[in-house]
Amino acid sequence: MDILKERIMQDGKCYPGGILKVDSFINHQMDPNLMMDVAKEFVRLFDGLNINKIVTIEASGIAPAILVGYLKQLPVVFIKKKQPKTMDNMLSTVVHSFTKDRDYTVCISNSFLTPDDHVLFIDDFLANGNAANGVIDLCKMSGATIEAMGFIIEKAFQHGGDFLREHNIRYEALATVESLDDCKILLK
Amino acid sequence: MDILKERIMQDGKCYPGGILKVDSFINHQMDPNLMMDVAKEFVRLFDGLNINKIVTIEASGIAPAILVGYLKQLPVVFIKKKQPKTMDNMLSTVVHSFTKDRDYTVCISNSFLTPDDHVLFIDDFLANGNAANGVIDLCKMSGATIEAMGFIIEKAFQHGGDFLREHNIRYEALATVESLDDCKILLK
Repeated sequence: MDILKERIMQDGKCYPGGILKVDSFINHQMDPNLMMDVAKEFVRLFDGLNINKIVTIEASGIAPAILVGYLKQLPVVFIKKKQPKTMDNMLSTVVHSFTKDRDYTVCISNSFLTPDDHVLFIDDFLANGNAANGVIDLCKMSGATIEAMGFIIEKAFQHGGDFLREHNIRYEALATVESLDDCKILLK
Repeated sequence: MDILKERIMQDGKCYPGGILKVDSFINHQMDPNLMMDVAKEFVRLFDGLNINKIVTIEASGIAPAILVGYLKQLPVVFIKKKQPKTMDNMLSTVVHSFTKDRDYTVCISNSFLTPDDHVLFIDDFLANGNAANGVIDLCKMSGATIEAMGFIIEKAFQHGGDFLREHNIRYEALATVESLDDCKILLK
């Protein structure tokens, strides 16, 4: 997706430790036209799959997910990062964030993730695959089927892609970062 | 907004302590068509205002905000609920959540909220006005101007509306809950 790759090269910022900051257009400030282009590309890539629900995880996945849901006319559920007081019938698992260096609990109501669901999971980043693993856990608990996963950006050097291939999960990333060595962005 | 009010009466659930659960269509599972209708209504209500940026707060405000941003062709920034490691130049303040009974830090980069900004703030709920107060703080710190605030649902019995009127902030709510007494939803 050239428009995304150009934007990453233009506005993305690199920090030591393999951190790519895209917070001026993706995950703090968001460019709604780019988000719509991203959503349309996900719809194109996953055309023909038997999907009845879009699932994402708060917070950065919500914008692309709601746009995919709108284009596909499907409900969108976001996995929450804490257990809300008012949420019963809840499935939860623990995810480790390397970026933030901590564990956090993610949860989803089993009213909105059920054995009838065929899920397209959408998120901003695929890095180590820890969030994706949490989604796999929650889908297993609920009996839902993961049909595919779509990420705006994959960090290929952090092996989340290997993890998903090992689990036979189809995924697509709209831009793939091969390396951030020496604080230079190298895209595939 | 009749379609929203009907949906609240049909699918909203009441819990003791003034809690209104709309998690099947607004803030956990989201109906993308309803969200688009909500966004269009915000655009209509705030037509003619001098706005150059949509601001929201993670997580439930992001879906309506990105749709408003798309319709208005304006950038959308979401205020974060924790201080990310990779975020410098950051403005922060503390917000108290009555629903969750705790304080949390919210923050926004001063790269994305500046004296040049004329902000429309979008969120799912106006309750006590604590989140709105946090937004007012952050805008003051940054020098940005709040032009208006839009909420999907106002809980009129929790006085966030009074707070905003005292601060001379124009706001609109698409549905107003007068009371949740006896776990019955009474809309205006």
